[in-house]
Amino acid sequence: MKRLITLLLISVSVQLFSQKQLYQYVKPIIGTEKMGHTFPGATVPFGAVQLSPETDTLSYVKNGKYNADVYKYCAGYQYTDPTIVGFSHTHFSGTGHSDLGDFLIMPTTGKLFLNPGTVSGNKNGFRSAFSHKTETVEANYYKVKLEDYNITAELTTSKRVGMHQYTFPKSNSSHIILDLIAGNYNYENKNVWTYLRVINDTLVTGYRQTSGWARTRTVYFAMTFSKAFVAYGQKNYDKEEVYKGFWRKFDQTKNFPEMAGRKIRTYFDFNTEEGEKIKIKFALSSVSQENALLNLKTEIPHWDFEKVKKDGQEIWNKELKKIEINTLNEDDKVNFYTALYHTFINPTTYTDVNGEYRGLDQNNHFVKGFENYTTFSLWDTYRTLHPLLNLIQPKRNSDMVRSMMAHYEQSALKMLPIWSHYANDNWCMSGYHSVSVIADAIIKGNYEGNSQEALDACIKTANHRNYEGIDDYMDNGFVAADKNRTSVSNTLEYAYDDWSIAQLAKKLNKTDVYNTFLKRSENWKNVYDSKIGFMRPKMSDGTFKKEFDVLSTHDQGFIEGNAWNFSLFVPHNPKAMIELMGGKKQFRTRLDSLFTMNLPDNFFAETEDITREGIIGNYVHGNEPSHHVPYLYNYVDAPWKTQETVRMIMKKMYQPTSDGLGGNDDCGQMSAWYIFSALGFYPMSPGSVNYELGSPVVTDASLNLENGNTFKISTKNQGDSNVYVEKVILDGNVLNRTYITHDEIAKGGHLEFIMSKKPKKNHK
Amino acid sequence: MKRLITLLLISVSVQLFSQKQLYQYVKPIIGTEKMGHTFPGATVPFGAVQLSPETDTLSYVKNGKYNADVYKYCAGYQYTDPTIVGFSHTHFSGTGHSDLGDFLIMPTTGKLFLNPGTVSGNKNGFRSAFSHKTETVEANYYKVKLEDYNITAELTTSKRVGMHQYTFPKSNSSHIILDLIAGNYNYENKNVWTYLRVINDTLVTGYRQTSGWARTRTVYFAMTFSKAFVAYGQKNYDKEEVYKGFWRKFDQTKNFPEMAGRKIRTYFDFNTEEGEKIKIKFALSSVSQENALLNLKTEIPHWDFEKVKKDGQEIWNKELKKIEINTLNEDDKVNFYTALYHTFINPTTYTDVNGEYRGLDQNNHFVKGFENYTTFSLWDTYRTLHPLLNLIQPKRNSDMVRSMMAHYEQSALKMLPIWSHYANDNWCMSGYHSVSVIADAIIKGNYEGNSQEALDACIKTANHRNYEGIDDYMDNGFVAADKNRTSVSNTLEYAYDDWSIAQLAKKLNKTDVYNTFLKRSENWKNVYDSKIGFMRPKMSDGTFKKEFDVLSTHDQGFIEGNAWNFSLFVPHNPKAMIELMGGKKQFRTRLDSLFTMNLPDNFFAETEDITREGIIGNYVHGNEPSHHVPYLYNYVDAPWKTQETVRMIMKKMYQPTSDGLGGNDDCGQMSAWYIFSALGFYPMSPGSVNYELGSPVVTDASLNLENGNTFKISTKNQGDSNVYVEKVILDGNVLNRTYITHDEIAKGGHLEFIMSKKPKKNHK
Repeated sequence: MKRLITLLLISVSVQLFSQKQLYQYVKPIIGTEKMGHTFPGATVPFGAVQLSPETDTLSYVKNGKYNADVYKYCAGYQYTDPTIVGFSHTHFSGTGHSDLGDFLIMPTTGKLFLNPGTVSGNKNGFRSAFSHKTETVEANYYKVKLEDYNITAELTTSKRVGMHQYTFPKSNSSHIILDLIAGNYNYENKNVWTYLRVINDTLVTGYRQTSGWARTRTVYFAMTFSKAFVAYGQKNYDKEEVYKGFWRKFDQTKNFPEMAGRKIRTYFDFNTEEGEKIKIKFALSSVSQENALLNLKTEIPHWDFEKVKKDGQEIWNKELKKIEINTLNEDDKVNFYTALYHTFINPTTYTDVNGEYRGLDQNNHFVKGFENYTTFSLWDTYRTLHPLLNLIQPKRNSDMVRSMMAHYEQSALKMLPIWSHYANDNWCMSGYHSVSVIADAIIKGNYEGNSQEALDACIKTANHRNYEGIDDYMDNGFVAADKNRTSVSNTLEYAYDDWSIAQLAKKLNKTDVYNTFLKRSENWKNVYDSKIGFMRPKMSDGTFKKEFDVLSTHDQGFIEGNAWNFSLFVPHNPKAMIELMGGKKQFRTRLDSLFTMNLPDNFFAETEDITREGIIGNYVHGNEPSHHVPYLYNYVDAPWKTQETVRMIMKKMYQPTSDGLGGNDDCGQMSAWYIFSALGFYPMSPGSVNYELGSPVVTDASLNLENGNTFKISTKNQGDSNVYVEKVILDGNVLNRTYITHDEIAKGGHLEFIMSKKPKKNHK
Repeated sequence: MKRLITLLLISVSVQLFSQKQLYQYVKPIIGTEKMGHTFPGATVPFGAVQLSPETDTLSYVKNGKYNADVYKYCAGYQYTDPTIVGFSHTHFSGTGHSDLGDFLIMPTTGKLFLNPGTVSGNKNGFRSAFSHKTETVEANYYKVKLEDYNITAELTTSKRVGMHQYTFPKSNSSHIILDLIAGNYNYENKNVWTYLRVINDTLVTGYRQTSGWARTRTVYFAMTFSKAFVAYGQKNYDKEEVYKGFWRKFDQTKNFPEMAGRKIRTYFDFNTEEGEKIKIKFALSSVSQENALLNLKTEIPHWDFEKVKKDGQEIWNKELKKIEINTLNEDDKVNFYTALYHTFINPTTYTDVNGEYRGLDQNNHFVKGFENYTTFSLWDTYRTLHPLLNLIQPKRNSDMVRSMMAHYEQSALKMLPIWSHYANDNWCMSGYHSVSVIADAIIKGNYEGNSQEALDACIKTANHRNYEGIDDYMDNGFVAADKNRTSVSNTLEYAYDDWSIAQLAKKLNKTDVYNTFLKRSENWKNVYDSKIGFMRPKMSDGTFKKEFDVLSTHDQGFIEGNAWNFSLFVPHNPKAMIELMGGKKQFRTRLDSLFTMNLPDNFFAETEDITREGIIGNYVHGNEPSHHVPYLYNYVDAPWKTQETVRMIMKKMYQPTSDGLGGNDDCGQMSAWYIFSALGFYPMSPGSVNYELGSPVVTDASLNLENGNTFKISTKNQGDSNVYVEKVILDGNVLNRTYITHDEIAKGGHLEFIMSKKPKKNHK
């Protein structure tokens, strides 16, 4: 009897051990080396705070020139670096440009240094060596030993508050540095103003105002320590401070409770016992110091670090459970849930707990009935991230659309966002892809705002004549190459966007609008040069640009891509495109060539967003314009090629290692591509209700939809070599098409893939 | 009969003509030449907007060094300059340092220039020549012809809104420039950030953020035009703008509705007919663009320029009527009402129409039950301006004290204001004179806030050990000369301030506090060197500083004064001072010497606030420390000398001309000295209920008090030579003292001066 109980206990504990929580499959370290530009630190789903270590911030660079390395440090952390310079509170996930990196905190002991030092070591700088051996990197938890100071650093967060826990050695000279100069993608004079107020010996508030990628941006903070500091101070590095009288009346370098300037680093001194923990709660707000304090008090009214960590991980678990999967091996599961984690970081929560936020008009607003989000990397995310959210996070995606509409309403330009964050638009990249996200949300029945107003905003944006060649595009059907450097990608992307507006108009029974924009959506044809079989820059006079290199990405009329990749960008009308390009057979050959061309190693070196790791032949998976391309094989009677290609891409481009991502994750777009592809279907043309079928990696999956329905995916004969789909069965019936529809998923059901080692070449 | 009626009509109209409104005696041009530093433009009493022409703003000076001429242009306008560069919305009245000069507007025609050009002419600059012949300068109204453009400019204001009216010639190239770089006391990089949003073709909002005398200051605006502009644009002069991507997508130089940067000048284009008027309403707020717009719509919901002008002048009339006087000649009346006008400009209204304002903690606050004021030049104004307001504007003065208390509560330092404006303290000058203003208000029974809390704030401020030698002062009874450059003036001013705290404590029956601060108030004795008979810098070791020059104002331990003037600064205990200095007779001789010493012409050249125009002998009336000195004769049995001296000072230092002020008006302090002296009494030691009697200039006067009582002053035998007082009769009884009390005034009554050509040398 006793033995039986023991066995039972063993059995139970084994079972418990094997029943890992989903968040435990998340490895935030994935993508932190080289080009992934993800960050390893702590955050909760769509959180306003992303608290993460920086291995370098390149403070600022002299003489107005900025170092090319700012690109490398978009997320602040590079896996192979030997030192950590501190922990800051805001990060983009996976971008190819940056901003943010606000409020760098660094604990030290011994002699106080206020300059960061250089990445190679801490000589005369406050940074510290660290080792990956002491690093723990989990969803909403980061831990590392700062070796130079024998300090253990731990980070976790709630939605708007970062929590630090530093375990100090015994020292009568322990410091916590708050560096208000540091930031990601920092230029000289990027700091417009910083302000800090010591309210008492545990509470500090203030703000940082920058002009970087966001031109007019302010982040307010409230910071509280678990232990009173014994002294504090600042150093002002600004040589241009104007009114010196301020400094005559007080020694403002030490224990002076109000600090303000362009270039300030501050410190707080403590005496610590061996193993003593000093905790910090650090809250953000876009509105005011008071709101930051309100966020702090509301979200974390206690000092229980473990609770904050656990609460955040439980939220991750809840969100990750929206898709439950099984896989052949743990690596696939790690890849999948880390990808899902990365799709649930951006866009980010922008409101304070009281519903207030700073709008694009630089006024403060209260949301009405929805959560306002920011960080819209739309050129990337309209493709797959938003369709994913529209499927498994429809409420949030609806709120994101409402946030875009608020942006539109507050916009002096009366335009929807292009690339927006923190009450600014930097208009980065091409197209006006908000319209795609809006159309997709409304067409799939998930938008809770006013659809007619949304359509009006789409039309107004698409008719903004003085933006990026829209005038020419509207008048002549293409953006002229002699007036615009990315005339072809603009024309192609406008055409797709216009198609999505047409679909939205159709849904709302606006026939005139539908006709107008459907016609515009054919404009891609105007930049197709049938003589060479590629999209090609066209001059105002209607002739094609003479000098033209179909392989180069530099100044050929495309943004971050070459003619080989971009010429296939007609996601909304692949049939017409294929026909124009010579028909199915010729197009199949063309796709084969794309994936197998042999290019020199440094071929794309001229374009920083395209690197070796992200390339397969001439196909660039590491950047977005071709993400739909593998699914085009479905349109040339070769779905088996889609199947083998997507499986090949998933294997090559998504690995469970620090250098495991083949390119910038771009706010989750790269990861969203993986999620759909791993499930076996893909939204090739957002705004369409169809998903192209591919080849799943999962053995089975459940999509737990917000409407209460479950859509199940299962496979038979799944295997690493069994990448081909023999048969697809939907709700018991064999499917004789290469797509499924949104309704088929949304109503719940069961999609079965019968896998095989052999391609089914006569699928259709 | 008919003839009688005609005569009656003539009589009536003559009478009407002679019944000038009081505001018509105000000549804002007084003090605009040389050292007065007043501004000629439009404002209402205590208004938030001071809309005034600038003859130069010295935009900013290269290489971090600022031109000494910034001092000359504290108020932006110098009477002898030949050109006007524009009209801006904020000005200090009469200060010796500056800031402000926000939002310079300039109308032009023809070729557009966006640089201001130099003061001597408009070559390649937008400024224009002007002549005083075309100038009309009234309370709340300014008019001038801009000769280079044949444009007539007119300005008027409401409390928070400036209104412009520009009469253009016929032109298809008329412009209105809004210069966001310009400002008074502008350094290079004083502009922290400026932002502008074109909401529609008549409405623009935005803000200007500066770091000058106020370290962290933002002023928001809303501007609306009476006519739609046909085009607009900007030039960004900042070479350091960081993210160039903003400019790739749009031509932002023209018709781009969102402008932001450190150095921006903008313009708005119009076609105008001959004589066409374009009006602008320009509202300010310390809180937000939205509040500025609210101020605009609430205060001036129409386009009637004449009504705004008239409304403002009626408000002036109402305020000026608080003191009704008659004089022997019109010049005296002009001097009096212009002085009264100048005392009713600063402090300025700081709240928006909804009661909101930005506090010292850089958070936004709503006032509760009072108007919040800013612009506290307390080292100047505690002496006479606040006692004047406490007498004739007690409600406002009470609100000003409450504003100081709000400052204290929001202060990270927990200090009352020293020199504060727009949510900042620049800690300019010495002492902590808020305590004097507070004590005076409470002692005279006018404070509507919590008196105990006010006393606590006074004590906390006076005990702020790390401010300006207070630690030494508290520990040793004097500020040590080896640690503090203005150790003697600090010691003397602290001693007076402490006396005022003691009086307040006495009023509140706090005996301990009374005893402590009364003892501290004797500390002036510790810096008196009886060997030389002067106050003198004392070293930490208790010895007097060896090198010492009783005439120099430079580095002798005094701020803006020499030992001759500052040694007499014991306003709260003149009897003890006189005794210590050798008794009445010796002291009388000392005063005589002060007023008659013959000093070289450029004697005080080393101190910019002391100039020839303000000096009588070695007595400096053009700066504040000696303002009480003429009344000290009352304490040495020579009130007749007080009488002749104050009459002499009034004659020399106050003239109805552009160069009529003998020194900086200092936010009305110089003018308040005139008001009291012209009425015949003076508050020598605020916090005391006594007013020293002098020699009135008026023939009679009525103080129309807020409590409904009237205090009448009348004279017999008044005359330019009859400066001596033969007899004083209060409410019918001959007064056998040289002072009257606050209660005697407040209860209403009648003070009669019997004047004489001959001094009454045996007054006592």
